[in-house]
Amino acid sequence: MTNSAKPDPRFRFRILLGHSIAVGPGKADLLASIAETGSISAAGRSMGMSYKKAWYLIDTMNKCFKGPLVETSKGGKAHGGATLTPLGEEVLARYRAIEAKAYAAVTDELAAFNDMIVETPSRD
Amino acid sequence: MTNSAKPDPRFRFRILLGHSIAVGPGKADLLASIAETGSISAAGRSMGMSYKKAWYLIDTMNKCFKGPLVETSKGGKAHGGATLTPLGEEVLARYRAIEAKAYAAVTDELAAFNDMIVETPSRD
Repeated sequence: MTNSAKPDPRFRFRILLGHSIAVGPGKADLLASIAETGSISAAGRSMGMSYKKAWYLIDTMNKCFKGPLVETSKGGKAHGGATLTPLGEEVLARYRAIEAKAYAAVTDELAAFNDMIVETPSRD
Repeated sequence: MTNSAKPDPRFRFRILLGHSIAVGPGKADLLASIAETGSISAAGRSMGMSYKKAWYLIDTMNKCFKGPLVETSKGGKAHGGATLTPLGEEVLARYRAIEAKAYAAVTDELAAFNDMIVETPSRD
């Protein structure tokens, strides 16, 4: 705990489908990183996860949505390039829009919350 | 996974303060259950947690906010009655308002998401 601890409000938005998480904060960040790096392994690495773990998350998304969100190229080397499909781009854009709209909708409530919270919680 | 799996969008809203969670879904439910049952042990039991765990969550909240959210009565028997303070009632009400406003703000986006998701994800 630092002395500069300030209230940090965070929304975590997930869409569950049965026992699967169709999309949530981690999967949205992974989509964004794939769009940025053009590579599943680079995207996974930037998030501290293995290629296998990154691929598992992508595979879950691809099964939960009506089409794949990520496409891999059939390049020569293993773990070749990857891009978002148009559906993948739409899912990511709508996820970010949901986050932004949720925060915007509660600005006043968050200010009221901040007034009720101490700057730094006391410790035993 | 049942055949009737339908997309289930969920917001989880937390306010972090340093390393502590000042309030989140579990703590909000605990406050609501204390208001309903008038007892920390009964509230904890209804959520499948021990008295010790319930008290730990309350203690964290009491330290993160500018005053206690829960007050215990000095009754004769151990684990006596508990009530929300006015501040506790306000925190719970504002937490529920934040959830409700966040959902209301993204109704259109959620409908669009539902259209992109399959009814039941395919399995390997």
